[in-house]
Amino acid sequence: MIQKVDHIGIAVRSLEESIPYYENALGMKLLKTEEVESQMVKTAFFEAGETHVELLEATSEESPIAKFIAKNGEGIHHVAFGTDDITGQLKQAADAGVRLIHEVPMVGAGGKQVAFLHPKFTHGVLTEFCSGGEH
Amino acid sequence: MIQKVDHIGIAVRSLEESIPYYENALGMKLLKTEEVESQMVKTAFFEAGETHVELLEATSEESPIAKFIAKNGEGIHHVAFGTDDITGQLKQAADAGVRLIHEVPMVGAGGKQVAFLHPKFTHGVLTEFCSGGEH
Repeated sequence: MIQKVDHIGIAVRSLEESIPYYENALGMKLLKTEEVESQMVKTAFFEAGETHVELLEATSEESPIAKFIAKNGEGIHHVAFGTDDITGQLKQAADAGVRLIHEVPMVGAGGKQVAFLHPKFTHGVLTEFCSGGEH
Repeated sequence: MIQKVDHIGIAVRSLEESIPYYENALGMKLLKTEEVESQMVKTAFFEAGETHVELLEATSEESPIAKFIAKNGEGIHHVAFGTDDITGQLKQAADAGVRLIHEVPMVGAGGKQVAFLHPKFTHGVLTEFCSGGEH
């Protein structure tokens, strides 16, 4: 089952410009920055209770984040729900008629198992399941 | 300080169509539905750990949610951070150069104190602070 909102992924043009906003205007604590080469992004993680705010800056014009910003501008890119059973969660979604982007979880930032649902089936919200990892 | 992601507000065309998605595909529990006449919306709340997923359906074409969907389609509308000191949080944001939509908190769904930051200053994320209320 879904245990929490693990993180909210936010597409930004520049970590250098947006990190000070989260630190100074919102008073949030920067936990770490990390580059995820497979996704062509640099990330910065902030803490808000049991949820992380994950800022995402593209490192290539081919990055999904660069394409998102070109279309929509900066903003919320996806929501990730933490679960103790990612395989069961994917099966439940598929059984309810949702197309899966990843039928088998892949390894994402922080060593987590992650999988995305196809956004045509999720009422406009790019939705990720994740489990495990260091967090 | 910010204690958690209190809720994620998601604009949907129809609660009737989207509630079954959250219940059946994601396996989340519907907590309640509530109409907020001042915002011209019907809302449905789901639980994900300490965070609520708040679905928002417009009850009028004049609703901010109707305007959002006309421009963007369904999707995440705003993020609300829960704080124990909404006045201090607003002051901190203003001192950092963020324009406030509400300089003084107003009463929102569930009797909470809520206030929004101006989205031109928040790197694309419509951002709410909230505190108190029944939750």
